[in-house]
Amino acid sequence: MNIRYIISILGKILFVEALLLLAPFAVAIYYGEETVFAYAITIALLFLVGGISFMFPIKQNIIRPREGLVVAALAWVVVSLFGALPLRLTGDIPNYLDAVFEVVSGFTTTGASILTDIEALSRSGLFWRSFTHWIGGMGVLVFALAILPATDTKSMHLMRAEMPGPDVSKLVSKIRLTARLLYIIYMVLTVIQFLLLLAGKMPVYDSLIHAFGTAGTGGFSNRALSVGAYDNAYIEWVITVFMLIFSINFNLFYLLLVGGFSSFFKNEELRWFFCIVLVAVGIVTMDILPLYDSFGEALRDAAFQVSSIVSTTGFATTNFDLWPTLSKGVLVLLMFFGACAGSTGGGIKISRVMVICKTALAQVRRQIDPRLINPIKLEGTILSPATRSGITAYMFAYLIIYVISTLLLCLDRFNLTVNFTAVAACINNIGPGLEDVGPMGSFFGFSPFSKLVLIFDMLAGRLEIFPMLALFSPSAWKKS
Amino acid sequence: MNIRYIISILGKILFVEALLLLAPFAVAIYYGEETVFAYAITIALLFLVGGISFMFPIKQNIIRPREGLVVAALAWVVVSLFGALPLRLTGDIPNYLDAVFEVVSGFTTTGASILTDIEALSRSGLFWRSFTHWIGGMGVLVFALAILPATDTKSMHLMRAEMPGPDVSKLVSKIRLTARLLYIIYMVLTVIQFLLLLAGKMPVYDSLIHAFGTAGTGGFSNRALSVGAYDNAYIEWVITVFMLIFSINFNLFYLLLVGGFSSFFKNEELRWFFCIVLVAVGIVTMDILPLYDSFGEALRDAAFQVSSIVSTTGFATTNFDLWPTLSKGVLVLLMFFGACAGSTGGGIKISRVMVICKTALAQVRRQIDPRLINPIKLEGTILSPATRSGITAYMFAYLIIYVISTLLLCLDRFNLTVNFTAVAACINNIGPGLEDVGPMGSFFGFSPFSKLVLIFDMLAGRLEIFPMLALFSPSAWKKS
Repeated sequence: MNIRYIISILGKILFVEALLLLAPFAVAIYYGEETVFAYAITIALLFLVGGISFMFPIKQNIIRPREGLVVAALAWVVVSLFGALPLRLTGDIPNYLDAVFEVVSGFTTTGASILTDIEALSRSGLFWRSFTHWIGGMGVLVFALAILPATDTKSMHLMRAEMPGPDVSKLVSKIRLTARLLYIIYMVLTVIQFLLLLAGKMPVYDSLIHAFGTAGTGGFSNRALSVGAYDNAYIEWVITVFMLIFSINFNLFYLLLVGGFSSFFKNEELRWFFCIVLVAVGIVTMDILPLYDSFGEALRDAAFQVSSIVSTTGFATTNFDLWPTLSKGVLVLLMFFGACAGSTGGGIKISRVMVICKTALAQVRRQIDPRLINPIKLEGTILSPATRSGITAYMFAYLIIYVISTLLLCLDRFNLTVNFTAVAACINNIGPGLEDVGPMGSFFGFSPFSKLVLIFDMLAGRLEIFPMLALFSPSAWKKS
Repeated sequence: MNIRYIISILGKILFVEALLLLAPFAVAIYYGEETVFAYAITIALLFLVGGISFMFPIKQNIIRPREGLVVAALAWVVVSLFGALPLRLTGDIPNYLDAVFEVVSGFTTTGASILTDIEALSRSGLFWRSFTHWIGGMGVLVFALAILPATDTKSMHLMRAEMPGPDVSKLVSKIRLTARLLYIIYMVLTVIQFLLLLAGKMPVYDSLIHAFGTAGTGGFSNRALSVGAYDNAYIEWVITVFMLIFSINFNLFYLLLVGGFSSFFKNEELRWFFCIVLVAVGIVTMDILPLYDSFGEALRDAAFQVSSIVSTTGFATTNFDLWPTLSKGVLVLLMFFGACAGSTGGGIKISRVMVICKTALAQVRRQIDPRLINPIKLEGTILSPATRSGITAYMFAYLIIYVISTLLLCLDRFNLTVNFTAVAACINNIGPGLEDVGPMGSFFGFSPFSKLVLIFDMLAGRLEIFPMLALFSPSAWKKS
């Protein structure tokens, strides 16, 4: 293990975090809040600790996959540990572990909250927690990649550990250029949404918070009732559309710019995604219709909640925990599907769901006729054995972590439904689950141990599982 | 599709079913029950329909995998449709669909019941429903294989569709010899358990019923309180031990006879199985200890319930739905694990669970060091790519059926926990789930549509999924 390399990268990332903390620092000054000192102290500390890393210059330039895995996992952990400090220091969140949970939930764009009275927080605190969504959205490391000087070989390992989805597609040969391109698309889309929310007479502060939460597919709101607090159809539809936009593979926006709509809609994953969303909205609308006065209102709430869950955002306009069983069943299933690969969303990803369905179907055909040669295709190309076994291993590791996490939560005081959906909400980076952890609930009641388990799940989900497993694997740390 | 071959096999199987129905017929005569006519009519009908099949002699001897898959699936369906007749005709179960559910649950050794007042049934009815467990245990077809004349090539396709577990191991080169050997072991073990239960002063009739239920890992009892009705520690321990015995790969009993204990315990799956059972019993005992007066009583109930679930039997000595969340979580997890491959038990099977764990672990190692060559071994031999992709496809197909079944059950009136565990109880061929379908509950309240879904799940689980999918696949029925 090249420890010096890891320290050096982490140091640089802490420097970047210090710069990012200037934003909530400015918000605190703008609103004349006392919290300004907490941000100042944290920024100073980050510069200090980051500076120490310069005393360990990289000696060897041997960067192997293990360094990439470990640095990806550690970066998220370290950034969260420091990012939780101001929330603890300002007293916004009196308990440090709770603050870490909240900030991990922010950076991983989960949106699960331990807060019970959201509106009691300082404006700078609420801003910071939502800003972590936006930072986390494209990944602290993709972000860092676009700014920090790095050779392509180093970046490749980082990218592989970081990019959501089963395969990293190379749009532009230079990875750093790609990262910058994705980042620009991300920024432009966020600004457009921000302006559209402003146009709907949402306050500037609230528009910013909700644009951050949507772009990162995070889901933190500054209102206890989430987006439901505004009770405004225009705002809800804007957010619905943008939640879906941020669920799409970002490479497709590049294709849209270059090749137009035809190449955009030629994407197989996108078509599956839209079909799934349409079917889910249709089923839920019909199922909840008796609870509503008009079809339009039912459709509005169904579309918002389905988009919120499938994009793994987690905003709410109603308490879907009170919906009929079928609607809850559909939403729980969508929790696992997640968004498209290469988006800011979490979950298993639509492309993996496609491979799962195609593999099962191919096996039925092969059992009926063993002589059949029936390769599995994705986006028109045959999947390599490496990609297929990678997806299988991902699914198996996902299942194992899911099962163990749920069992560990059973040591706590909640029932099976709460534990099962709490893990679903965290490992898929969504936010709300059902019952106690439902859209109007909170993760506050879990024991510190359960919170640690869920923190692990959020990080494992965001990092596509293997970096977090590598972090705890002795063989990754072995001397070479 | 060779329709004549399918009709011919099904006809012979119906003849066998007619012979098997002589047993409940004899019970009805012994107890002087009026139900005797219902059995007589059914037997006559089976001989008639079976006889018609002789009018369609096999023309071509071309038997392909598709014929094997379809005949395996159809055999279970047809045998259940006829097997349900006497229960309907006697009025033991007034609704024919309910009777089919009960008999499918019997033949698939599930043990899920739509009965609400078990002890109101006739003695012959209770005997028949438990006898279906025993018949189903080794599989109607393995059973038929040992009796009916068949060429080895034909049998091979049937065996592949039928044998539980990821791989069919050839103990003796002749498959029909193996089938007979397994069948003898099965019979001898059943007789030993029957005698041990008699020795515990259990009535003869009850001993027979519970020996059938244990051997087939089914779980139907003639008492509403299941094994708990006897409140007898000796009986409970005997059944606990035999539930575990019938969870073991039957090939190992042959090895035990030939090679002694050393070759028996060298089996990797067996060691995993025992470890899982010991850990589960340990956790559950500790978890339920506060509810009991003594450690011994807690251990007795924990060992019984864990063995009942992991063996996929489904007997109960207490209502585990009232246990703490952790114990319920462990039991729900064990529902999916299931028994060893090549046993009469259901579920995913321990050997597949082993492959899942090993695949995930191997991927972590390969991510850390991509140059690593790290083949996955089972029982000391490297798994072939075909076996591995077979297990992957099985798991994916299992997941898809699981998800769709649970969603379809959501159309009914129960909550998510009931629907989730009802599907678990049926697809894994266990019997009881949680809450309304718990050990003291019943599947009676489901709609006819939900019952059809669960019937499909029981058959899919018992037949390792693919024969049932092939049955509904147009390509299996295509003219060649």
